[in-house]
Amino acid sequence: MKLYKSTLLIFLLVFSSSVFAQEGEPTKPEATETYKPVPPKVVPGKNGAPPSDALVLFDGSDFDEWISSGDSTAVKWHLNKDGSMTVKDKTGNIQTKRNFGSFQLHIEWSSPAETQGEGQSRANSGVFMQKRYEIQVLDNNNNSTYVNGQVGSLYKQSVPMAMASVPSGEWNSYDIIFHAPKFSKGGNLEEPATITVLHNGVLIQDHFEIEGPSEYIGWPKYEPHGKAPLELQDHRDNSRVSYRNIWVRELD
Amino acid sequence: MKLYKSTLLIFLLVFSSSVFAQEGEPTKPEATETYKPVPPKVVPGKNGAPPSDALVLFDGSDFDEWISSGDSTAVKWHLNKDGSMTVKDKTGNIQTKRNFGSFQLHIEWSSPAETQGEGQSRANSGVFMQKRYEIQVLDNNNNSTYVNGQVGSLYKQSVPMAMASVPSGEWNSYDIIFHAPKFSKGGNLEEPATITVLHNGVLIQDHFEIEGPSEYIGWPKYEPHGKAPLELQDHRDNSRVSYRNIWVRELD
Amino acid sequence: MKLYKSTLLIFLLVFSSSVFAQEGEPTKPEATETYKPVPPKVVPGKNGAPPSDALVLFDGSDFDEWISSGDSTAVKWHLNKDGSMTVKDKTGNIQTKRNFGSFQLHIEWSSPAETQGEGQSRANSGVFMQKRYEIQVLDNNNNSTYVNGQVGSLYKQSVPMAMASVPSGEWNSYDIIFHAPKFSKGGNLEEPATITVLHNGVLIQDHFEIEGPSEYIGWPKYEPHGKAPLELQDHRDNSRVSYRNIWVRELD
Amino acid sequence: MKLYKSTLLIFLLVFSSSVFAQEGEPTKPEATETYKPVPPKVVPGKNGAPPSDALVLFDGSDFDEWISSGDSTAVKWHLNKDGSMTVKDKTGNIQTKRNFGSFQLHIEWSSPAETQGEGQSRANSGVFMQKRYEIQVLDNNNNSTYVNGQVGSLYKQSVPMAMASVPSGEWNSYDIIFHAPKFSKGGNLEEPATITVLHNGVLIQDHFEIEGPSEYIGWPKYEPHGKAPLELQDHRDNSRVSYRNIWVRELD
Repeated sequence: MKLYKSTLLIFLLVFSSSVFAQEGEPTKPEATETYKPVPPKVVPGKNGAPPSDALVLFDGSDFDEWISSGDSTAVKWHLNKDGSMTVKDKTGNIQTKRNFGSFQLHIEWSSPAETQGEGQSRANSGVFMQKRYEIQVLDNNNNSTYVNGQVGSLYKQSVPMAMASVPSGEWNSYDIIFHAPKFSKGGNLEEPATITVLHNGVLIQDHFEIEGPSEYIGWPKYEPHGKAPLELQDHRDNSRVSYRNIWVRELD
Repeated sequence: MKLYKSTLLIFLLVFSSSVFAQEGEPTKPEATETYKPVPPKVVPGKNGAPPSDALVLFDGSDFDEWISSGDSTAVKWHLNKDGSMTVKDKTGNIQTKRNFGSFQLHIEWSSPAETQGEGQSRANSGVFMQKRYEIQVLDNNNNSTYVNGQVGSLYKQSVPMAMASVPSGEWNSYDIIFHAPKFSKGGNLEEPATITVLHNGVLIQDHFEIEGPSEYIGWPKYEPHGKAPLELQDHRDNSRVSYRNIWVRELD
Repeated sequence: MKLYKSTLLIFLLVFSSSVFAQEGEPTKPEATETYKPVPPKVVPGKNGAPPSDALVLFDGSDFDEWISSGDSTAVKWHLNKDGSMTVKDKTGNIQTKRNFGSFQLHIEWSSPAETQGEGQSRANSGVFMQKRYEIQVLDNNNNSTYVNGQVGSLYKQSVPMAMASVPSGEWNSYDIIFHAPKFSKGGNLEEPATITVLHNGVLIQDHFEIEGPSEYIGWPKYEPHGKAPLELQDHRDNSRVSYRNIWVRELD
Repeated sequence: MKLYKSTLLIFLLVFSSSVFAQEGEPTKPEATETYKPVPPKVVPGKNGAPPSDALVLFDGSDFDEWISSGDSTAVKWHLNKDGSMTVKDKTGNIQTKRNFGSFQLHIEWSSPAETQGEGQSRANSGVFMQKRYEIQVLDNNNNSTYVNGQVGSLYKQSVPMAMASVPSGEWNSYDIIFHAPKFSKGGNLEEPATITVLHNGVLIQDHFEIEGPSEYIGWPKYEPHGKAPLELQDHRDNSRVSYRNIWVRELD
C-alpha cells in the first residue's frame, strides 16, 4: 500500500482529531468539575507523627496492639522508657492483633551504636507486611551483605535503589505504601502485591511488584490469603533492633 | 466432565507443586543471593532537607535553575529573605531550565495567613510535572471548590484521597513520585504517566495513572513528548503562593 | 529471614489452600452451572460458505454493499460471471457502505495464473480493516519481497508466520478475527486493535496487537476513530486481483 | 489552571506531532522494510485436511500417537473402517503420547444420528488441551443443558458465542488456537492460557482467558505445569462420540 504524506498533511490540518475536539467533548470548564464525594479532612502530623486519621500501633505506652507470633501470648520484647521497644532475642516474632489489607505505614527503627556481628548477623530484623512480605531491617553501615538482603530490600526479591541509613544508633524511618495481592475466587493470582518505600525520605522501593512471600530458600510463590497481621522479626541472632512511632492508615 | 475431589486430594497431598519444590528450584540459601550491582549510599536529609544525591532546584539563594515560561527571560517572582519565593501576579509561570523524565520531588508551599478570594481564587497555583501534569496548589481551608480541582488533586482527573493541608500561613510539603509516560516510536501511548503524592506525609495520590495533560476545558489527551521542565503556575488571580526547599532525584 | 521448608511442608499438608477448598467454594456441581442467556443457534456453512447469521458483503450478484472510496460513486471494478469481482487498475479502492467495529471476516481472493511483474508489483492488493489496518494480498509464489510486506503480513508491522498461498490462479481464503482499537473519551489509545488470520486454514497472524494504521512511509500512529468501512485496494500497478465470497459476522 | 483552545489550536497547527513526523521518523519507504527471517512455505490442505507442516495425530489408520490415560496401556476405543474412531464407554480417556504447549488444532467429531439420553448424557465427550482445559463435545441438537456446559463451552468457564453444530450424525469441526499458560520460576501464574475456537467455521470462543483447569465442582485454580498431552474424554455415560482428522501445528 502507499500513502502520500503530503496529502495526509493537508488532511490532518483540516480534520485531525488532535487539533479539533472529539465529538461530544465538553466546551465549558464546568462540564469537567466534580463536587462529590468530598474527601475527608485530615490533620497531618509533623516529622512522622501520626496524622489525625491514623491507627497508632505503637506509641511507647504498651503492647496492647501486639502479641507473640508463635503462641499468641503476651509480647516478651523490651518496652523502653524512651517510648521505644527492643527485640528480645529468641522470644520470637511479634505481630499485630489486627489484620490489614492495603495500607500506608510509618515505622521508625534503630540499631545499636555499638555494633556486634557481621553481614546478616548485625542487628537483623524485618517488617513483614501481611506476615509474608518482608522489608529488611539491618545495620549496613560499614557492613556489607548480599544486596537483595541488605537494609531496605524486599527480601531476596528487590534490591533497594539506595542505602539511605543514618549512622548506627540513630533513628531511621520507613514510610511504606503497600497494596495487598488480589486473588480470583479459585485462588489464582490476579494482581501481585506492590510496595513503595521511602527510607528516611529517600525513595528506595518504587511500586515494586512483589513475587510472593519472602523466602530464605528457593523461589517465592503466592498462596491465596486475606487480610493478615503486620509482623516484626526476632531474627534470633543479634537482633537487638528497636522500634518506635508505628502507625498505619488503611487504604481499603 | 467429572473430576473427583477425593482422588484429587490424595494426588495433591503426594505430588502438589505447592508442597514440593518446582523442578530446578534452589535448595540452598546462597543460590538466591545477589551481590551486584551495589546500590549507591545516600546520606538522607532531616525533615524534608535534600538527601546527598538530590539536585537542589531552589534553596532560597537565587533563581539560577529557573526562567519565565512565556519568554524564557529572567524570573520576575519575588525572592524573599526567608529563603522562599512568592508568585508575582501576572508575571507568568516559571519553569526549570532543565528537562526531567521520571523523578522523586520534594517541594514546600504556603498560602497567605490573611486569606483573600473564594473557591479557585484563593491562593491558586500549581506544580506541573513536565509542564503538563498538574498537582493543584490551593488554599482549601474553610474554602470549598470542585473536588477534582481542590488542593492535591491531579487537576480535573483525580480527587485527592484526603484534604491534608496545614492552616493558611503555615508550610505544606508535597513529596511526589512521578513516572513519565512512555510512547511508541510512532507516538502511541504505551504507558501512561503515574503519580504518587504525600501531602504533609499523608498519602493523597496513590500511583494514579494520569489520563493526559491537565485541561481546563475538555478531556485530557496525550501527545508524545520527551523530557520537559518542572513548572510552577502564576494563576493571575490571587496567586500569592510561596515556595521553598525544592529538590529532585531523577529516576531515569 | 529464615523459613524452614520442613515446617512449611507440614503446615501446607494441613492447611494449604491448594489442597483444601477456598472458603466459600461451592461443593456441589449445580453451584457452578449457568443457564442464561442462551447463545443463539447458528447454521454453519460448508467450505467457507456464510453461516446463517452472517452479513453477506459480496456473493457475486452485485456491488450493492460497496462504493468507490475516493468519491463515493459506483464501483468501477469488474463484476465477473463466475461470481467474483476483479480490481480494475486505477479506478481506486472500494469500500463497504456500512461501518464496522470488531468482526469475523471471510474473504476469498485469487491472483492471475499468468503472472506479471515482480516483488510488490505482482498482483498487489489488500484488505483494510476499518480503512486503516491492512492484511496484504500479493502473489508471492516464486516471487519474494520484504517479508513484512508479503502475502498475509499486517503491512509493515507483522510478518506472517507462514507463506500459505495456493498456486497462482487458484482461490485463497482469509478467515480473520479483528478487534477494533479502543480509545478514551479524550482520544488516548486504551486497547490496540488485534488481528488473527487463517490463510487457507493455516494460522499466519496470532492475535497480533496492531501498532496503528498501516503506513507506507514511517511509523504507525493511532488516531481515535469509530466504526469504519472494510476496504479493498486498487494498488494501481498490476493489481488484477479477484475477490469472492465475502461475509462478516459482527462481534460488537 | 487555564488553557486557551484557540492558542492551542495555532500551536498544534504548527508543531503538532500528529501532523509532523516524530523526530527520527523514517522518510523513505525502504527504511521500514524487513527481509529476514523468511517465514516457512506451507502447502495448505483443502477442507480441513492437514497442511504440509502439521503433525497428524489421527488419520484413521491406527492409534500410534495415543494411549489410555489411566494406565498408559493401548487404546481400547473403536477404530472404524471409515477413518474415524469412536469412544468405547467405560474404557477411559485417551491421550497423546506427545506433550504440547501452544498450538493450532484441527479436530472433527460427530454424535450418533439416533440420539440417546438427555442433557449432559447425550453424546458427551470433550477435548482437553494439556489434559486440563476442556472444550465440551456434546449433542445439543434439540437438547438443552446449562449453557456453560453446552457444546463448544470452555467447560464451566465460558459460554460459547453460538450453538453452531450440524445435525446429529454429521461431522463437526473444531479449529482451535490455544496458548499455554505461563508461570514464574516459583510457580505463580504470569499469563493465563487463552483459547479461540471456530466451530464449523463459526467463531464461538474469542481469545478467552482460561481461569484454570476445567472443574466439575468448585472454582478453577491453576497449578504450574509444563507441556502436557492432548486428551479426549470417555464420559462413561453415552459417550458414543466419534473423532477423525486430528492434526496439530505447534506454536512454540
